[in-house]
Amino acid sequence: MTDSAFPVATPERWHRRHLLAIEPLSREEILTVLDVAAAMKEVSQRDVKKVPALRGKTIVLLFFEPSTRTRTSFEIAAKRLSADTVSFTVSGSSVAKGETFLDTVRNIQAMAPDAVVVRHRSAGAPHFITDYIDACVINAGDGSHEHPTQALLDAMTVRERLGRLDGLKVAIIGDILYSRVARSNVFLWHKMGSEVWLCGPPTLLPPVFRQWPVRVTYRIEEALEGADVVMVLRLQLERHGSLRFPSVREYFQRYGLTRERLKYAKEGVLIMHPGPMNRGVEIESEVADGPYSVILDQVANGIAVRMAVLYLLLC
Amino acid sequence: MTDSAFPVATPERWHRRHLLAIEPLSREEILTVLDVAAAMKEVSQRDVKKVPALRGKTIVLLFFEPSTRTRTSFEIAAKRLSADTVSFTVSGSSVAKGETFLDTVRNIQAMAPDAVVVRHRSAGAPHFITDYIDACVINAGDGSHEHPTQALLDAMTVRERLGRLDGLKVAIIGDILYSRVARSNVFLWHKMGSEVWLCGPPTLLPPVFRQWPVRVTYRIEEALEGADVVMVLRLQLERHGSLRFPSVREYFQRYGLTRERLKYAKEGVLIMHPGPMNRGVEIESEVADGPYSVILDQVANGIAVRMAVLYLLLC
Amino acid sequence: MTDSAFPVATPERWHRRHLLAIEPLSREEILTVLDVAAAMKEVSQRDVKKVPALRGKTIVLLFFEPSTRTRTSFEIAAKRLSADTVSFTVSGSSVAKGETFLDTVRNIQAMAPDAVVVRHRSAGAPHFITDYIDACVINAGDGSHEHPTQALLDAMTVRERLGRLDGLKVAIIGDILYSRVARSNVFLWHKMGSEVWLCGPPTLLPPVFRQWPVRVTYRIEEALEGADVVMVLRLQLERHGSLRFPSVREYFQRYGLTRERLKYAKEGVLIMHPGPMNRGVEIESEVADGPYSVILDQVANGIAVRMAVLYLLLC
Repeated sequence: MTDSAFPVATPERWHRRHLLAIEPLSREEILTVLDVAAAMKEVSQRDVKKVPALRGKTIVLLFFEPSTRTRTSFEIAAKRLSADTVSFTVSGSSVAKGETFLDTVRNIQAMAPDAVVVRHRSAGAPHFITDYIDACVINAGDGSHEHPTQALLDAMTVRERLGRLDGLKVAIIGDILYSRVARSNVFLWHKMGSEVWLCGPPTLLPPVFRQWPVRVTYRIEEALEGADVVMVLRLQLERHGSLRFPSVREYFQRYGLTRERLKYAKEGVLIMHPGPMNRGVEIESEVADGPYSVILDQVANGIAVRMAVLYLLLC
Repeated sequence: MTDSAFPVATPERWHRRHLLAIEPLSREEILTVLDVAAAMKEVSQRDVKKVPALRGKTIVLLFFEPSTRTRTSFEIAAKRLSADTVSFTVSGSSVAKGETFLDTVRNIQAMAPDAVVVRHRSAGAPHFITDYIDACVINAGDGSHEHPTQALLDAMTVRERLGRLDGLKVAIIGDILYSRVARSNVFLWHKMGSEVWLCGPPTLLPPVFRQWPVRVTYRIEEALEGADVVMVLRLQLERHGSLRFPSVREYFQRYGLTRERLKYAKEGVLIMHPGPMNRGVEIESEVADGPYSVILDQVANGIAVRMAVLYLLLC
Repeated sequence: MTDSAFPVATPERWHRRHLLAIEPLSREEILTVLDVAAAMKEVSQRDVKKVPALRGKTIVLLFFEPSTRTRTSFEIAAKRLSADTVSFTVSGSSVAKGETFLDTVRNIQAMAPDAVVVRHRSAGAPHFITDYIDACVINAGDGSHEHPTQALLDAMTVRERLGRLDGLKVAIIGDILYSRVARSNVFLWHKMGSEVWLCGPPTLLPPVFRQWPVRVTYRIEEALEGADVVMVLRLQLERHGSLRFPSVREYFQRYGLTRERLKYAKEGVLIMHPGPMNRGVEIESEVADGPYSVILDQVANGIAVRMAVLYLLLC
């Protein structure tokens, strides 16, 4: 099970114990993750997709919200690094028996994991955990706060295709209000020297967002104008207390990304979506499956980025 | 983790990338699976039940219908070959968030699995997937279409006990209409040169089945007469829109396999059931637990056959 | 994956195939588990938390009752010994399709596991299984009968802190009636030469318990008086057909473990709880988190004890 050809040396540039958010990261730290992720991607393309880097490490996947995509991505990433994974889900668990969140966390700590990947509906839950746990904590999405590995895999995808991360116009379209994906991306692209435009209906993009380092518009044509990258957000109907727009049909008419509207964007624009997609709601199928779409590159790069993060935190 | 004594050489006779159905397989291909499965069975009888054949391979278990038996069998098979497994279940997944089946499949493909084991309520779903995925696809049951590894484990069990697969009378009793197990077995036994008799109430065995290469009867005594092998199917009450027979009690009286009725069969007849059994509905407990029952051999051989299939597709 | 430094030799003193209960164990057998567990604990403190002792062994986790804590503890224990684990849960399984418990067990046996860890709502289910299965069976909690690994981890925790297991006063407070934890601990401490006091409301501690080798009291102050160890049981509201005490508030007033009440116990008393805790019901937060609490030591020792049990049964 040795693998002397493994190409990634532990970078000198990384000193964090946790990955909780993009906001506190430096430009150099982001680039370090992306560099290591590029090396990790090569592992997933081998015939034997496994390196012994994290053998004997225990990684707990602590998901308080349902997720298949993100949990599976972390699980595959961990296994390709030879770590052991244990899923700790909410249903049928001690939480249902009345245990507090903190007691659950303390119990997991007592089991001596090396890393805990946590998703929770409350913003700040991963940060909160770090006071009670020796393990490395990775935020896999906390409420409407951040989803840092998503922004990192988005950046990896853009760098692969466009060769750079600065000087770009990045348009984020849709359900900004509830989006941890938008938030993490805003911080990342601002740090890297690109300009972020936010666009959506006023009910999903209230004026408070003007305080971020972004441009805000309610006209999708203006957001798309000259864009290098368009990120379409999933309309998270399940989070909306009441419908914040007249109808799904009208939403598509005003803010859906169609091939027709793409003419405003730059030639070679990258179309991204964090998934899962509502086709015909926030994005037209012709665009999702079209030549500019890098949506499946995002999924593949998700594993590479998560391998890189696990590797940087645990090696 | 090396194991030089591993006895299975990659056969020259196998060239398929997927296992979707029994129908397209040749006699030689079926025998190849059974030969490799016999070698694999020896691995499960060792003290260390593990060979490194599939180390570094990622196998996704994609189950859109609930299953414990089949999923566990594939999972154990994969682990005994040192592969990594990831379960991708429906509940709490992206499907619940409105993602299309195809988008789920494309996402899994982007995670670069080596094989995808799929169970789906729709006939043809595994075949459909092969157009969108580079991984090997194994059908673990698609609607009322096929369940090829079930028929292969049935054949392995018969060959172990009777020493041959041709010239036999194989009676399949019960809920034929909804049975992918029946369908896969009909194809297999016809190819191997044995005669299949189907028997069940007319509502579960409509005249269309006479177009298959089988004999059809509605009298269980005629089906059992001189039979070498009796396969009792599970009455799949959960699939029936409305009850297709007067009562469970009457079903047992007309079609239940009892010790009394077994006198019609050949001495040494093999009693099989794909499980899970409804005792007292389609089969009498004395028969299920009796000396002719090979029902638990089927379960044990299921792991060997699934190891063989994974090995043949991935090595 | 070799590890020549692994410090545990197979003890001569262990000859059992199963761990079903504390009741039949000898004093020497209990000490053997604790000795091996102490060596196993060191493995969980290494950088590479993994030894190859059980490589190629298949361990089935067969849980008919929801559990996260115990299942996860066994799963981590198994993986740190390099065994493969397969979870066999009730929901969505063959049980839902009408399969009998015994057929489920026979099917698992046919898959040739090396050990089966079973939790079931019925007392005696693990013992029942041993007649039908070649694998080692470990009871992970059967109804209100026993939960042997819980009592063993409790003993390990006490021995670590107090240096001995005899001559102690052990007070068990609360929901005795439904508690397999209490039952296993009563047997263990009696064997080791310590005195157990049971205390709770009469509805949860009926006179029949006086037949056990224990002292019974309905006054918590008397139970705590001079106690070396206090075990607070979870009020299992989910098991009570009807509320067996006036209110949760009144329960806390009469039997809740408070800092005020702890003054009756010995200086340095150990506070234990099997988890999950109902804070403010059976235990005050100040006590659960206080200097005498060893509740999280119990969780950590749970993994060590389960590693020891798997090792003793399978090596």
